[in-house]
This record gives sequence, C-alpha cells and structure tokens, in this order.
Amino acid sequence: MKMRRKGILIVVSGFSGVGKGTLMKQLVHSYDNYALSVSMTTRQPRPGESDGKEYFFVSREVFEKTIAENGLIEYANYCGNYYGTPKEYVEKQLEKGKDVILEIEIQGALKVREQFPTALLLFVMPPSAQELKKRLEGRGTETEEVIDKRLKRATEEAEGIENYDFIVINDKLEECVKEMHGLILAAHETPDRNQEFIDNMRKELENFAK
Amino acid sequence: MKMRRKGILIVVSGFSGVGKGTLMKQLVHSYDNYALSVSMTTRQPRPGESDGKEYFFVSREVFEKTIAENGLIEYANYCGNYYGTPKEYVEKQLEKGKDVILEIEIQGALKVREQFPTALLLFVMPPSAQELKKRLEGRGTETEEVIDKRLKRATEEAEGIENYDFIVINDKLEECVKEMHGLILAAHETPDRNQEFIDNMRKELENFAK
Repeated sequence: MKMRRKGILIVVSGFSGVGKGTLMKQLVHSYDNYALSVSMTTRQPRPGESDGKEYFFVSREVFEKTIAENGLIEYANYCGNYYGTPKEYVEKQLEKGKDVILEIEIQGALKVREQFPTALLLFVMPPSAQELKKRLEGRGTETEEVIDKRLKRATEEAEGIENYDFIVINDKLEECVKEMHGLILAAHETPDRNQEFIDNMRKELENFAK
Repeated sequence: MKMRRKGILIVVSGFSGVGKGTLMKQLVHSYDNYALSVSMTTRQPRPGESDGKEYFFVSREVFEKTIAENGLIEYANYCGNYYGTPKEYVEKQLEKGKDVILEIEIQGALKVREQFPTALLLFVMPPSAQELKKRLEGRGTETEEVIDKRLKRATEEAEGIENYDFIVINDKLEECVKEMHGLILAAHETPDRNQEFIDNMRKELENFAK
C-alpha cells in the first residue's frame, strides 16, 4: 500500500489555549510521516526566533511579490503584518509523501480547502469549556480581561466546527497524539484520496471481463 | 469521552470473494464494541443454519407485514425470496452504544444512508484485481464461468466506490481488521456524530461570556 501513498495537507485549528502547538510538535516527534509547514511573515523576529524555523522572515516587498506570483496558499494581515503559507514547500513535501501540518484559523482553513480539496481539517477541542478556562487561568500569565477575551474568541471560533472533518479532544496529550495520528491514517483511506488506485483496479477488472 | 459515545451503523460492501465475511467475523471477535446485524429472509434455512443466527427465517406473510409496518431499514427480493434488515435490533444496539455492522451491496447501502444519515459506508477491496482473481480461483470450487461472472459483477460494483466513506484494502487479515477498526474509531470523531458534545461546549462557552 506504500506505493499509493500521497501526502495529505492537514489543517489544524482550535481554541486558543487548547494545546494545539504542543500536540503538533508531539505528533511530528512521534511519527516520521509528518512535516510542519513554516509560515512567511513580515513581522520582526522575536528574541530566540530564527529564519526558516518559526517563520520565514521577509520584507513587505518580498511578501507582496510572493502574493503576486500566486506563491501563497493563503495569507492574512494582522496588526499591520502579513502572515501566509508558502505553497512551494507544502507541495514539495506532499510529493515526497509527507503529511504536511499547518496551524491556522477557520477563514484560512477554508481558503486552503479551496486550493487543496483533499486537505484534512482538524479542530482541536478541550474535553469541556470549564477545562479550557482552567488551562487559560493555569498559565498564570494572563489577566482576567485577557482570559475573558479568549473565551469570547472561542465562542466565535466554535461556530465553524461543522466545517471540519474531525474534532480532536485534547484530554491527555499522549492519547490525543495517537488519536490524531489515527484520524490522519483513516483520512488516507477515503476514495477521493485513492482515485488512482481505484481507477487502476477498474481498468484491471475490465480487462478480465474482455 | 465514553459518555458521548453513540453507536454507528456500519455498512460493509465489497467484491464477492474479497473476504468480507471473515473480516467482519474477526472484527467482532477482536473488539467488544461491535454487533452484527442479522437479516430477515423468507428463504428456507440450509442445513446447519439456525433462526436468529445466520438469518431470522420468516414466512412471506410476516415479512410483508414487517415491510408494511416500516420495520425494515432496507429490503430486496432476490430469486423470489425477500431479504431485509430489521430496524428494531439495529436501533436497540445503537442505543446501547454498539457499532452495528451490516453486510449489504451498494443499492442497499444507499437506502440505509437515507434513513441513517450518519451511517458509515466501507468498501472492501483486494490489493489488486489479479489478487481477487487468484482468490476466486483458489477456492477451487467454482467453474471458470462462475469466476468470470463474479469478476464481471465486480466491475459493476466498482462503479459505486465513490459513494463510500472509506475503502478497506484486505491484504493481510490481521492488519486489515486493525485498520478497519481504526477507520470506525475515526468515524466516531466527525462533527456530525458529536453534535450534542459540540452544542454543549457552545452553551458552556456562551455562559462564560455573559
């Protein structure tokens, strides 16, 4: 079955504070079929960030040239800075058979699906809203106001859940990583992601019938 | 997560000779979340078959009464005998949280989906058409004519594959059983099969925002 394996583009969304980042890092660390997509941005690198790792840091001119050349799968402008997903890296990894993971919010996720109809959309949820609140508070770094803002934002994000292929409940990290991997393995077995295999089978069967 | 588990109705189709029966038996034997649906028929029991195990054997009158009472999920008439899926047994098992497995061909599968929109449709395929031919020949019990008929029938059945949620490649039995179980676990994590959980999360989040 290895020979018919093509990479899937996986879009991960979910409430702020739910633990998406840790989950994705652990997934990439635990299995060898994943590649993390690296975004391009015009914002300045923060201390400790390096080009090509957290982001590709580019000038406004380079970013706008990349847009003009249709080199981004999606992009957005937050607080005066551009953020986007370079297409070339993603396509290269998919061709190699890697499943490429991309963290992005709902609007971006839907844009990705337009260009990659077989993209897999995963939405990470806490086991309960109470648990999400606890996790946000537990960080100890945020004011009550910021926590309230994030919970309100979660309410808005929750509106789009039905657009996703699967929900992923992040209760215990290790279990959740396994579950997420299982969902991605399953996604490889849909007919639309095996069209070549199915078409070949049909041709072979028709030849027998002759 | 156990508390939000509801059973899924699983429809298994696939080419004759591909090993669906063995696969389903092994699945039910290996995991405790499955129940096999038992069909109702008006045909006579064969030696060794017993009522309620291979089939519910009933008279034509009882079968037609069951149709009239809307007691069947689907039914068909083959060679003058009725075959159908009793609704009550399936619904009881689903309520208990069991995933109910049903072997049926494409027309029946599509009828099931009309009544159970969250039914999961699996299509079992051989690793290659050549392998299917080999398995049919390997039985040693069929004439060349019968084998040709089955291969022709497979060509027709292959037309409907895109209607299924997942394809299942039956190469090595044990691996295939695990893979099939994985697909069913994944299916439990779609938004439409977790609507209650999602709605509750939304309500909880909205309450925080007040």
